[in-house]
Amino acid sequence: MNQVAVAPRAIDFYFDFVSPFGYFASLRIEDLAVRHGRTVNWHSMLIGVSVIKVMGMKPLLEIPLKGIYIRRDALRYARRRSVPLRRSLDEPTVDPLPAGRAYHWLKQHHPTKAVDFARNVFAAHWEHNKDISDITVLSDAALDAGIEDIELGHIIASDSAKQLLRSAVEMSLERGVFGSPFFLVDDEPFFGVEKMELLDEWLGTGGW
Amino acid sequence: MNQVAVAPRAIDFYFDFVSPFGYFASLRIEDLAVRHGRTVNWHSMLIGVSVIKVMGMKPLLEIPLKGIYIRRDALRYARRRSVPLRRSLDEPTVDPLPAGRAYHWLKQHHPTKAVDFARNVFAAHWEHNKDISDITVLSDAALDAGIEDIELGHIIASDSAKQLLRSAVEMSLERGVFGSPFFLVDDEPFFGVEKMELLDEWLGTGGW
Repeated sequence: MNQVAVAPRAIDFYFDFVSPFGYFASLRIEDLAVRHGRTVNWHSMLIGVSVIKVMGMKPLLEIPLKGIYIRRDALRYARRRSVPLRRSLDEPTVDPLPAGRAYHWLKQHHPTKAVDFARNVFAAHWEHNKDISDITVLSDAALDAGIEDIELGHIIASDSAKQLLRSAVEMSLERGVFGSPFFLVDDEPFFGVEKMELLDEWLGTGGW
Repeated sequence: MNQVAVAPRAIDFYFDFVSPFGYFASLRIEDLAVRHGRTVNWHSMLIGVSVIKVMGMKPLLEIPLKGIYIRRDALRYARRRSVPLRRSLDEPTVDPLPAGRAYHWLKQHHPTKAVDFARNVFAAHWEHNKDISDITVLSDAALDAGIEDIELGHIIASDSAKQLLRSAVEMSLERGVFGSPFFLVDDEPFFGVEKMELLDEWLGTGGW
């Protein structure tokens, strides 16, 4: 009998575009996956739903003590790894829905280019301090990913895109995802950019 | 002029005896500090005050999604590092006040033995699954640390011990400490046992 080679499962990478730590993780996850012969399935989700509605917490940056720490930790991470970060964490969080809807629609309709779109959105927001709730900014991110002839404004307002994001968020919650970044490797969960070393070790050793 | 050698500041190590991650950190922090020519100042604090009263959160293990993850993460940590962990995280949290009061009283009156007491309390709870709100268990922890001829029951009930713990918790909050374990290195904060590698790197490089 012939053995059928089964490709290893993709690493599920969950992020919210408005999460700085999601941005940091987006810069490293593909390299990490490649080293272990894995691919990455990028899922945009909404921390606002998991943290605030499901977990009953305040937005992380507004939690006393923790908010101050998180700001400092993010800046420290960026300095240490020379990550360009031009958006201040003191600025108000923008609405992540348009970017999330656009991403999930593109993932269905332009699957080979959607990850580049996601990267461009992260860069627009965190590297260039642009407002990613602005359709123009999102349209540029799509164009720069080689996606032409779409009307992103219409797409984001469509029931189809809304439903795609809603389903994605629901599925993330069903899988226990509660923050950004969050990774699932063969169902093993890893929360936080600082867990990427552990994830790396898990993939290298087969886990503990 | 002679230069006066100034000893580097101690690493401030904050923990709650009922925190499994505080226990994990307690097993590693002294070795880490010694490698960098530092000492460690052990501070027991109360997550119940920081997390619940100040931050307005539920007890971590009771937060939807996050509680499940934390349990899994703690067990994974213990397996990976072969840490003896015989207490189930599903058991109810015991009252950390008696151990905290005893620790701070001993830190004042038996400063050279208080850290051994703290280690014994951690071991009693997490390695041997004992109830550390029980005076007998705490008395054994003191005896095993070489502290004799004290009445721990009276000490824990004393205004002096209560005030010492209260002050310690207040000071921890003033310094921005909100979880267990939490480290301050020359005022630089590190939260979580998984940040110990970063703390190590910080001490080695002088920070970023």
